[in-house]
Amino acid sequence: MTAHLLTIGDEILIGQITDSNSAWMGRELNLLGIRVSGKSSVADDPADIRAGLDHAASLANLIITTGGLGPTKDDRTKSTLAEYFGSRLVFHQEIYDRIAAYFARVERPMPPSMREQSMQPDNALILNNKVGTAPGLWFEKNGKVFVFLPGVPFEMEYLMTNEVLPRLVERFQTRPIAHRTLLTAGEGESNIARRIEQFEDALPANVKLAYLPSLGQVRLRLTGVWDGDITPTSHTELGALLDAQKAELEAIIPDLVYGYETDTLEKVVGKILQAQGKQFGTAESCTGGYVAHLITSVPGASNYFPGSVVTYSYEMKTKLLGVSPHTLETHGAVSEQTVREMSQGALDTLGVDVALAISGIAGPDGGTPDKPVGTVWMAVSDRTRTIAVRHVFGRDRLKNIQITGTYGLNLVRKFLLGAI
Amino acid sequence: MTAHLLTIGDEILIGQITDSNSAWMGRELNLLGIRVSGKSSVADDPADIRAGLDHAASLANLIITTGGLGPTKDDRTKSTLAEYFGSRLVFHQEIYDRIAAYFARVERPMPPSMREQSMQPDNALILNNKVGTAPGLWFEKNGKVFVFLPGVPFEMEYLMTNEVLPRLVERFQTRPIAHRTLLTAGEGESNIARRIEQFEDALPANVKLAYLPSLGQVRLRLTGVWDGDITPTSHTELGALLDAQKAELEAIIPDLVYGYETDTLEKVVGKILQAQGKQFGTAESCTGGYVAHLITSVPGASNYFPGSVVTYSYEMKTKLLGVSPHTLETHGAVSEQTVREMSQGALDTLGVDVALAISGIAGPDGGTPDKPVGTVWMAVSDRTRTIAVRHVFGRDRLKNIQITGTYGLNLVRKFLLGAI
Repeated sequence: MTAHLLTIGDEILIGQITDSNSAWMGRELNLLGIRVSGKSSVADDPADIRAGLDHAASLANLIITTGGLGPTKDDRTKSTLAEYFGSRLVFHQEIYDRIAAYFARVERPMPPSMREQSMQPDNALILNNKVGTAPGLWFEKNGKVFVFLPGVPFEMEYLMTNEVLPRLVERFQTRPIAHRTLLTAGEGESNIARRIEQFEDALPANVKLAYLPSLGQVRLRLTGVWDGDITPTSHTELGALLDAQKAELEAIIPDLVYGYETDTLEKVVGKILQAQGKQFGTAESCTGGYVAHLITSVPGASNYFPGSVVTYSYEMKTKLLGVSPHTLETHGAVSEQTVREMSQGALDTLGVDVALAISGIAGPDGGTPDKPVGTVWMAVSDRTRTIAVRHVFGRDRLKNIQITGTYGLNLVRKFLLGAI
Repeated sequence: MTAHLLTIGDEILIGQITDSNSAWMGRELNLLGIRVSGKSSVADDPADIRAGLDHAASLANLIITTGGLGPTKDDRTKSTLAEYFGSRLVFHQEIYDRIAAYFARVERPMPPSMREQSMQPDNALILNNKVGTAPGLWFEKNGKVFVFLPGVPFEMEYLMTNEVLPRLVERFQTRPIAHRTLLTAGEGESNIARRIEQFEDALPANVKLAYLPSLGQVRLRLTGVWDGDITPTSHTELGALLDAQKAELEAIIPDLVYGYETDTLEKVVGKILQAQGKQFGTAESCTGGYVAHLITSVPGASNYFPGSVVTYSYEMKTKLLGVSPHTLETHGAVSEQTVREMSQGALDTLGVDVALAISGIAGPDGGTPDKPVGTVWMAVSDRTRTIAVRHVFGRDRLKNIQITGTYGLNLVRKFLLGAI
């Protein structure tokens, strides 16, 4: 069972908006065992819409379209659909009444264009939109299902959840699909691939592994498709198979895995701090507050995070963290000695149990032969020990800041867990 | 001249990642006068890739593909391309050397799979990827151009900017298009629209205005398409027309415009600080270092930014900034009195000429009837005056942090310019 997602509208093609609807729909359909085999976008033009529908119908049995339905664009799409599905547009009193009630509730005058919104094809199932004015439409033609939804994300999500997904479950017999994702940090795609090569080669035929890299991180996603007879326990059995594969994979690279599914490093570090009852702070130079920002982007961070200092200048490193001017003169700001003194100083300045210090050359300029752009020293301390490490990242300032944030948080995680 | 964008990869179809590449490419191509007439996505499967290429080629003369190029096993794209374009895969020593140099620089062992990365089709132009390992590829077939790029956004952007866009300008003759963008902060789309209504109604037929809103900001983009005969001076004449329109627009809303084109608030604030020879720092509570991060994301920030303090707890506000415990007890951390004391304290703690202090309730919890979630107080100080303002934003934590960053930097900009 496959689906094709079609978006209608110029604003997606010229890059004025990013299409986040398709990703949401892909996830939801996948959970029902409906594989999205393709996606496409066409301009807000009758010929393009017709060609897009023909193409989608040639590829899948379910076509879900977003966009092109609404008070301003409505006419063109709807008359194109009426022609495509051989419909007549008829006035629906109950749609009109619902829209009128909607405007009464939000205390706004009802625009005249709303009468148009109540004209709908006579051979479509009308999908009731309780959170907006444009209803969704469900057509069947040559054994294929065509669903049309408004492009406003929360209206689309409302209609999918309440009107479309339940009908799809009834209408199609679907094959269970499930996913498990391991989140890793600190190692590149190729090196991970080498370590897990045997595991990957031995995967069952119905389980696939995908590498999803981002800065300093790689997500490893296992996807299983049920390939036996579909019974009431298929979904549970597939889940158990994937859980076993996931456990096996994690056992090969326990040093790299920091979390699962929708975890983030800052959430994981926060949970460990909370569980251990520890207070944490940062002393940042080249990251300029980025790590503190990550930590405080998690709700409830105030339970374990009293504050940070960003010390960009030598003077601030000395004044706020007690780094000795001699250290700075002798070894420079980007050195093991400096980050050690920064993290130890931060324990006192911030009154925390654990501190992370970072100093580096974010770039694009400021490198030297022995300390090229991208060189970063970081140290993590508690009252009994300090561990310092050096990395050399790339030449792009913002990427260096972001990847340093990832490595820094991962260093703290390992330190808290006693893994280093 | 039209283009089709094709993404390859299961992760987009199952909704694990949102396709932000297409929006970026759509915008950039548009600037060159190349219209994106459609977009599509196919699975990481040879038959789907071939069908996707055929479909794309039936719709446009330029096909740009992202994804499916990379070192690991989930990438079957290259052999599919070799077959599609009748190529032989040959070893490229210079690609191998470049990848080896890359791994040497970041001080990591080079995985054996990198030899695979150096095998490339013999009839493609190799697009040199200086920020990653997978090169881009440029094929020509039946008069159509096919470009293949890795899916990692910053690698794709690097290759588009440095290798693809300049070649497209040479390869295709396009009707001159030009853009001018005014950047505004602190006012919403509808209120701006009302203020510039007459200007918008009087625009020449070949100039369009687009509103591009983001958190706390609206970019106003004027796009002109040359509608006369194409002569050597068309581009200059079109530019002059747009410059005049831009000046007229700015004169209507001078209080809202903070910059042009690719400016950012943090760059603009940095330039003013540098020009005025002033040092700046922040004292942040609810933004948790985000404003310091913005400031330090600009190269050369160390010229005007010695540091910041993030004071999440009452204790840190008192210890690091000298906020009186009495103030905190009487008025609370989110109050005019507290942010005034924070910004004045930051002048001394950080030894700066101008300081910004922020304290608010980022959410999702922690609001009270008189201080709901989204309430933010901010103050900017120099040695002679302090200005404090209050805003009430929304309920989403991350959005509140980001919009507060925008409003905070804009407050500093106006303060420095003497506009408040």
